[in-house]
Amino acid sequence: MGHSDHLDEYGDAYGAIAEINDEQRWAFGSSFEDPLAGVDVSVPSGVDGDDLAAYCLMLGDDALILSHRLQGWVSWAPELEDDVAIANIALDLLGQARLLLARAGKADGSGRDEDAYAYFRPASEFRNVALVELENGDFGHALARLLVFSTYRLGLLDQLRTSRDPVLAAIAAKGVKEVTYHRDYAARWMLRLGDGTDESHRRAAGGLAAVWPYVPELFVPHPIELRLADAGVGVDPSTLRAEFDSVVEQVLSAATLEFPPEPATSASTPDAVSAPGEGRDGRHTESLTGILDELQGLARAHREATW
Amino acid sequence: MGHSDHLDEYGDAYGAIAEINDEQRWAFGSSFEDPLAGVDVSVPSGVDGDDLAAYCLMLGDDALILSHRLQGWVSWAPELEDDVAIANIALDLLGQARLLLARAGKADGSGRDEDAYAYFRPASEFRNVALVELENGDFGHALARLLVFSTYRLGLLDQLRTSRDPVLAAIAAKGVKEVTYHRDYAARWMLRLGDGTDESHRRAAGGLAAVWPYVPELFVPHPIELRLADAGVGVDPSTLRAEFDSVVEQVLSAATLEFPPEPATSASTPDAVSAPGEGRDGRHTESLTGILDELQGLARAHREATW
Repeated sequence: MGHSDHLDEYGDAYGAIAEINDEQRWAFGSSFEDPLAGVDVSVPSGVDGDDLAAYCLMLGDDALILSHRLQGWVSWAPELEDDVAIANIALDLLGQARLLLARAGKADGSGRDEDAYAYFRPASEFRNVALVELENGDFGHALARLLVFSTYRLGLLDQLRTSRDPVLAAIAAKGVKEVTYHRDYAARWMLRLGDGTDESHRRAAGGLAAVWPYVPELFVPHPIELRLADAGVGVDPSTLRAEFDSVVEQVLSAATLEFPPEPATSASTPDAVSAPGEGRDGRHTESLTGILDELQGLARAHREATW
Repeated sequence: MGHSDHLDEYGDAYGAIAEINDEQRWAFGSSFEDPLAGVDVSVPSGVDGDDLAAYCLMLGDDALILSHRLQGWVSWAPELEDDVAIANIALDLLGQARLLLARAGKADGSGRDEDAYAYFRPASEFRNVALVELENGDFGHALARLLVFSTYRLGLLDQLRTSRDPVLAAIAAKGVKEVTYHRDYAARWMLRLGDGTDESHRRAAGGLAAVWPYVPELFVPHPIELRLADAGVGVDPSTLRAEFDSVVEQVLSAATLEFPPEPATSASTPDAVSAPGEGRDGRHTESLTGILDELQGLARAHREATW
């Protein structure tokens, strides 16, 4: 890195600290530019551009909405270190969302940029799964959701690294590094909670029980996912379930937590939310409306961003 | 960096993206550790440890409280890029706060860690200036505050790099790199707003007018600051004012904004807040109480962090 020579004399902690953020300045340096500037964004042969765009929105909206939910935790976490960690995770996911939404705009020929997708779509055009839009609960809920989501997404991104779409492959390669840390963070907290006090164990188990009904939706393949998997561009999520169960089971076992029972049908979902499994087609709970009111408020109030 | 070879083939944007976050993993890697682990934290000769601790709280609390206010903007910014940028700035400041609060605990011999300072102090023991605790206003207000604060803090940290306290010097060296970007970001937005539409100009001018009464407090030296400046450890902030005015004037001039009039006395402060100038001694507005309710809620509810 070169710039940290001066700091290294203060020991490893400073060496590590000095590395932080020095390479993350694209947000500033790029000065309101397209995050895919300079990248070849042509649609791979044999792939429908609208399919590819919809697929990017599925993966991008998952990241965008969970990023928003995690941001709601920043400054509320039990330790400053967790504020930092959760804010970093939220930022990683926001970065993934920007790239995926930008890629969507290049794939469907609409010319929309990531802001157009984030700020000017109604809820019915968001393609995220229900898991990410659930209201924030307690810290046990937040960590259980993060464990489940990160385990699913890491398996998905790992496969996507060999996508025939070089843009998706590059986004996935970057994302694998990030989500590996997210999963590790969530797993270590689940261990700490599950194997802690009676109260912490109860919170972790409660969080897990609350998010578990939303797990099946992650692995139900959408027709678009299947078409793109056939074309070597996307991933059939049903192929990811076995590894997901294996990883989650290892974490829960070490945390002395029970593997929750699979919901028999969507009827087991709490009444307050719609049945899971429909998010990829734009059917969402009221919770998403609340998120979009916040996320889209300023941009919509000043549609042209003229002030 | 080495790890981005695979991505570089996709162009510069991916090269830049791939660098993000890869080196910022101390939050995860350190696993609930002291951020100053391995650093020599002995108090320099001729310096009172309680003075040094109080000084670190002044600088740390400024960063902690503004970080919280900026987090309130994430997901509300007009573009996704600004969400990313503001979240990064908030994270930088939170990182500075952790180090400074940790350093305070090593200086006063109390053995308190950064969490003890952040979560278990009453408002009357916080030493931040009033500027950082002001309620969030509109985006013009947020950027005006950031411009003013970053310009002040960059001047301060630049001087602190030669502090006789090697811990403060290292924190400052890291901080200078970060705050240089914060100031640049704020300045570019002030240009965009000030030199934009009538409405954006009005917003920028309004934000500047709202924060300007809180500028003098930044430069009023506290007796502790003067003692530490004499000892070669701290900085007399009154020596920073001329450069501050020069930098702000350059930005405002380019942004076609007027330099606000200096408030004649603290009587010009809006009635709803206390007079500025007393924050370093723990006198704060009601706004700080609201921030601490959020920041300290979970940690206080579970004092031992046992769940």
